[in-house]
Amino acid sequence: MEFDVAFYEVFAEEAALLRKYLPKRYRYFFTAKSIQDTETGHLPAPIISTRTQSLIPRKWADQLSAIFTRSTGFDHLTAYFRGVDHPLPAGYLPKYAARAVAEQAFLLMLMFLRKMDRQRQAIRHFSRDGLTGSELRGKTLSIIGVGNIGSEIANIGSGMGMSLLGVDLRERRELREAYGLEYVDLSRATARARILVCALPLTDQTYRMLNYRVLSGLSPGAILINIARGEITPPEDLLRLLKEEKLAGVGIDVYDQESVLGSSLRGESTEETLGKSERRTLQANRQLLEHPRVIATPHNAFNTSESTDRKSRQTAQNIQAYLENGAFLTPLPE
Amino acid sequence: MEFDVAFYEVFAEEAALLRKYLPKRYRYFFTAKSIQDTETGHLPAPIISTRTQSLIPRKWADQLSAIFTRSTGFDHLTAYFRGVDHPLPAGYLPKYAARAVAEQAFLLMLMFLRKMDRQRQAIRHFSRDGLTGSELRGKTLSIIGVGNIGSEIANIGSGMGMSLLGVDLRERRELREAYGLEYVDLSRATARARILVCALPLTDQTYRMLNYRVLSGLSPGAILINIARGEITPPEDLLRLLKEEKLAGVGIDVYDQESVLGSSLRGESTEETLGKSERRTLQANRQLLEHPRVIATPHNAFNTSESTDRKSRQTAQNIQAYLENGAFLTPLPE
Repeated sequence: MEFDVAFYEVFAEEAALLRKYLPKRYRYFFTAKSIQDTETGHLPAPIISTRTQSLIPRKWADQLSAIFTRSTGFDHLTAYFRGVDHPLPAGYLPKYAARAVAEQAFLLMLMFLRKMDRQRQAIRHFSRDGLTGSELRGKTLSIIGVGNIGSEIANIGSGMGMSLLGVDLRERRELREAYGLEYVDLSRATARARILVCALPLTDQTYRMLNYRVLSGLSPGAILINIARGEITPPEDLLRLLKEEKLAGVGIDVYDQESVLGSSLRGESTEETLGKSERRTLQANRQLLEHPRVIATPHNAFNTSESTDRKSRQTAQNIQAYLENGAFLTPLPE
Repeated sequence: MEFDVAFYEVFAEEAALLRKYLPKRYRYFFTAKSIQDTETGHLPAPIISTRTQSLIPRKWADQLSAIFTRSTGFDHLTAYFRGVDHPLPAGYLPKYAARAVAEQAFLLMLMFLRKMDRQRQAIRHFSRDGLTGSELRGKTLSIIGVGNIGSEIANIGSGMGMSLLGVDLRERRELREAYGLEYVDLSRATARARILVCALPLTDQTYRMLNYRVLSGLSPGAILINIARGEITPPEDLLRLLKEEKLAGVGIDVYDQESVLGSSLRGESTEETLGKSERRTLQANRQLLEHPRVIATPHNAFNTSESTDRKSRQTAQNIQAYLENGAFLTPLPE
């Protein structure tokens, strides 16, 4: 093969940082595309690195020696390994982006509470009717999934003077003490939330966990922020909740079957190639993006110069460790 | 006169709350318009209440018994009293909106640091090039004017893990201790700021204080947030600083000669009635509103349901006190 490592889904700023931190004596392939969006279809290097949108061909499994995902979530690799004969050495980035994601969650909250789009439109006539918003201080914030990202959200929420509820299998006393976080069950967290944030990892247990039935328990005026994984909040359910006014707003950075949505939005695929259920999800996602009470961003909450720097440095260290010692520094958990 | 109290510049939500809190036995006049935008020109009540955009006719001074401004700033009343024979009893609202304004300042900061407009545009093609933002944590925030609003900004900034610099005539030890705020002089605050927030009252001393010369001292990439008074940051100067890349962005809620801008945007006045300097300011303001690196809101940072409630309650208490005892609870300082 022509290269030692092939990097997919590398955006411009990230490529520059990777070139800076990677050891110089190896040959690297970079592309902004996902694997399925590249034309060739052949494997250019024994080690590949992706983010979350690439679909790795099953037939590559025998030629690959290792996979490194430049993301905190690794559900896509777990799914891939289920479909091949033997798992491969694989690594991921457990912690690089928690702060960036948490700050974006607060940006989304403030935009809804302060009716920011309307404020900006109203400048045209310098009018103020219908622009009265709400303050974050004193509101109840329910954090579903209090891991690395969730606890950073609790940290900021505490500084904002909010009441914090958390839902997690593991309760951590230090978060109770530092941020006044109260652990409750999911139905209580939903009923009391003014704002509900999904910060769960995607697993078999969390798949479609925040569905129509669960989110129907929200109080009127509540908003949902999902900066974790789209598969946890089915888009058809969100549309119905918005329509029935059970959700006042949705701030969303992640999408169910995101790689399908991404390819479709870029015009790189057609709906004809999709199955019935995939097509339904795609249509619901597209309706969600157009909805007036949805603020949507393209899986970009992680994307700050600070986290990009942390990510590229940690990726380069992992790749170097694998090239030189045959093991990643942060391998996938068993 | 037909009424006991006339309220100008009352938007819809505020009117409902005032009706709720005001004593029932008096007659009230409400209009969303400023005084100059109402047609009649005659004074409908001996007590008037405005916000900041009304121009009170000089000839009313002899018929008026009192003025209450539903705002924290009262520079417009000070200016009015300079032009009439004798000052009138006058009241204002010293503290109702500090939290609302401070939260909006952070919303503006986050929108710039996270390139939020670009993020939302990029969803159309689900691309991420050029979307890398910055985190608030660890950045230096310079607060010019650390009064009620400025200290609430310091409170939130401290919770966000920012480095805080403050500029004020009066240094308060409690702010140093609570938020790690460091008092410095204006040139130092400017040179070190990643974000500079103007939270000054408008006085003879602060008029045009943050002008071209002063803000030229900012470091590359710095942004300015003004949620105080537009007269402190001349719009012509902001345009020049943006053009010369000395300012990366401006988040602005307040405008130099705001009543002129408001009337002009609503099509209620023409430029022909304006003097040369007013016309220049109006044109600069209009260019600012169109600038791609400006986020503009219509003097709305104060406007939350929490602060509207506090404001209407405090206004009603002041009006009642004046009607019954001839004195406001929070009169203008001497």
